[in-house]
Amino acid sequence: MGSHTKFLLSEDDIPQAWYNIVADLPVPPPAVLHPATQQLIAPGDLEPLFPQALIEQEVSRQREIEIPGEVRRLYQLWRPAPLFRARRWEEALQTPARIYYKYEGVSPAGSHKPNTAVAQAYYNKQAGVRRLVTETGAGQWGSSLAMACNFFGLECQVFMVRVSYDQKPYRRALIETYGAEVFASPSSRTASGRAILEKDPKCSGSLGIAISEAVEVAAQDEQTKYALGSVLNHVLTHQTVIGLEALQQMRLADDYPDVIVGCTGGGSNFAGIAFPFIGRKLRGEQDVRVVAVEPAACPSLTKGRYAYDFGDTAHLTPLVKMHTLGSTFVPPGFHAGGLRYHGMAPLVSHVLEIGQIEAVAVQQLEAFAAGVQFARCEGILPAPEANHAVAGALREAVRCKEEGISRAILFNLCGHGHFDMQAYMDYFAGKLQNYEYPDAEVAMALAGLPSVAA
Amino acid sequence: MGSHTKFLLSEDDIPQAWYNIVADLPVPPPAVLHPATQQLIAPGDLEPLFPQALIEQEVSRQREIEIPGEVRRLYQLWRPAPLFRARRWEEALQTPARIYYKYEGVSPAGSHKPNTAVAQAYYNKQAGVRRLVTETGAGQWGSSLAMACNFFGLECQVFMVRVSYDQKPYRRALIETYGAEVFASPSSRTASGRAILEKDPKCSGSLGIAISEAVEVAAQDEQTKYALGSVLNHVLTHQTVIGLEALQQMRLADDYPDVIVGCTGGGSNFAGIAFPFIGRKLRGEQDVRVVAVEPAACPSLTKGRYAYDFGDTAHLTPLVKMHTLGSTFVPPGFHAGGLRYHGMAPLVSHVLEIGQIEAVAVQQLEAFAAGVQFARCEGILPAPEANHAVAGALREAVRCKEEGISRAILFNLCGHGHFDMQAYMDYFAGKLQNYEYPDAEVAMALAGLPSVAA
Repeated sequence: MGSHTKFLLSEDDIPQAWYNIVADLPVPPPAVLHPATQQLIAPGDLEPLFPQALIEQEVSRQREIEIPGEVRRLYQLWRPAPLFRARRWEEALQTPARIYYKYEGVSPAGSHKPNTAVAQAYYNKQAGVRRLVTETGAGQWGSSLAMACNFFGLECQVFMVRVSYDQKPYRRALIETYGAEVFASPSSRTASGRAILEKDPKCSGSLGIAISEAVEVAAQDEQTKYALGSVLNHVLTHQTVIGLEALQQMRLADDYPDVIVGCTGGGSNFAGIAFPFIGRKLRGEQDVRVVAVEPAACPSLTKGRYAYDFGDTAHLTPLVKMHTLGSTFVPPGFHAGGLRYHGMAPLVSHVLEIGQIEAVAVQQLEAFAAGVQFARCEGILPAPEANHAVAGALREAVRCKEEGISRAILFNLCGHGHFDMQAYMDYFAGKLQNYEYPDAEVAMALAGLPSVAA
Repeated sequence: MGSHTKFLLSEDDIPQAWYNIVADLPVPPPAVLHPATQQLIAPGDLEPLFPQALIEQEVSRQREIEIPGEVRRLYQLWRPAPLFRARRWEEALQTPARIYYKYEGVSPAGSHKPNTAVAQAYYNKQAGVRRLVTETGAGQWGSSLAMACNFFGLECQVFMVRVSYDQKPYRRALIETYGAEVFASPSSRTASGRAILEKDPKCSGSLGIAISEAVEVAAQDEQTKYALGSVLNHVLTHQTVIGLEALQQMRLADDYPDVIVGCTGGGSNFAGIAFPFIGRKLRGEQDVRVVAVEPAACPSLTKGRYAYDFGDTAHLTPLVKMHTLGSTFVPPGFHAGGLRYHGMAPLVSHVLEIGQIEAVAVQQLEAFAAGVQFARCEGILPAPEANHAVAGALREAVRCKEEGISRAILFNLCGHGHFDMQAYMDYFAGKLQNYEYPDAEVAMALAGLPSVAA
């Protein structure tokens, strides 16, 4: 397995096609329902929101979806992303584990989000769309889409969860530097926003509310479409460039992961690293354990109900079957803003249901402790979201030590923490706390989980 | 010249040796003088501050200085750094120029500074040193040295210019995350700091003052040494990995720079990209124009005096011959904190004196405008310091357009701006201003430029 600490690919190794896991699933994922009729949705129903090409990808059963040349050229701005062996961390942990991490923080926005942002902007541009509208929590997605829109001369509007808008002005500044407009959500620009502000003028917002606002704006204007940074099938498919590159890089390392770890909010970076490996498992090529790590304060996979639910608070989105805490659940203010979502990508939920992955929940103090240890060993400071993956990898490495077994652990370091220093300051100042998720049944009843049959 | 937008190297292409330009200089650089006696300094005089290996590098005339294996292995955490062709920016500028940029923002600290930080930490560790002490302005250097010390189990203390300490808590948080101690400078921990606080209890500090404090601390404790992030010969030599990689990458691009552009504060990132190319020019191998871009508010190369001066305010450092605005000159509060230094690296000063490079000064509004345009085309948001290099490259690209000549322009994008969003916010809010440097003679008289003969 050599002595290298980094495994690089050339530009020509950027994948030619995304991987669509649906092609390899033994059981197809449950259908999507129309929000008004609760009947099967027709692809045409999505046309107000998405261009035709992305709707086709959303329902595609093709294993490979070709990456357009222009998207591959833009990928070159940060791809192939490096894969590292965490030798210094292994030493510090005195573990026999071989720990690898794929590092997506080298993108201009500092996370994996541009992988789908440039693809979505491309297809919208091809379809003659003039403007994209989206939501963002901590701002990773908003800044990535703003950058991508700018590449293609598209206008971009971002509804940013108010608490982040107020507390994280720097991500907002990055979005604005890329030329996009940012509105604090809930806003008075939409009916959904006004309805919430009427009840609670000081509402600090949530991803679910911001999605409602963005969807509402897109639905009202033919030249405006909606873009989502996670959850949807086509978004997860775009992110598989991460795992497809990692597959090649593990070959360079002359090794193969025994276990793959990713953090899950909406599920896209996790799917990105894991799906190509799960596909190999499904096709009987090579086995692998896969662990999704979610925040204990927003534990959709470990404590949510697997049920049809809305993606947003105002119930404008289609109903999808997913692990959910209820569409009006407002997660507490822990620091991994990118993981503060009530639901989980239907495809990630599905692979959990069919036993292809495991899920664990991690408290933020454990996540930050792991992230700081990692940063001191490897130099790279992970984003708070990524700290959950680091903590998951750490648990696996400790198990290897306890069991005296050398396993290869691969995790996705989905972004750097340079925009998240306030969270680290709060952590060192002892201001961070763990959050217990309330009793699941009570919480979900409060959070308006609909009664549509599972 | 192909259609690629990125030129990658493999780990094995990380240079085996740093390049020392002194070996190729037709005229040796002026000697260094002792601060007390103003006589030629002996290498032994530097021993309280630096380990033997670095003193040897400081006075070396060897062309190649081997990079220790452990340093090369740490370089793998971010090196080789990518070299890009800025095709989208070229298109936007409608210039016939071929613009290339070397991107050092992929390092864990987000800038080129770790290139020398890990080397300095290594040699100090080898020499049995227990603790390094340094100064930092905006925090790029402090965070890099903190990271490097942590890799080698060295303690680290950082005197941070008070205005940055107060206004830029996030860089400080990064330094602390890596495990180092940070003190606002001037501090009451040193005689130099106390002397200044007595005169002005609210003094906002300067790099010159912070250097005095760090040097004072190092000189008083045998197990503590001093580390400097720029200016000194060995620091510039370590940074030549940038240019040595760029040389290989320009070959991959089947091209060669007609002009090289770098921003200059203390001079290290500029020297890093330029010296290997200037060496080829000095050896008669290939010609190249080289342009140093400095901030108009702190124009040591274009308006300073070429004279012996101190590196710090309290006059504890040796006297070096350099372009200087006077050791007590306090630059105005423009946003490129890394360029706010009264002097210039003696080697950079020397190559300007012998006609090997040119220098221009750029106002910060021009620099930010160039940086925003660059970010919108290329995705990467440059640090305010790097914006000066972007502005310099832009001027050259516009010249190519005016003259109808296709030249290859190579510049160093020495760091990303993710820690500098306040500066961008201020820029968009119209709060940034240009600063005119005052009448040079008056300013330098006020700034205590010593009378030691040039």
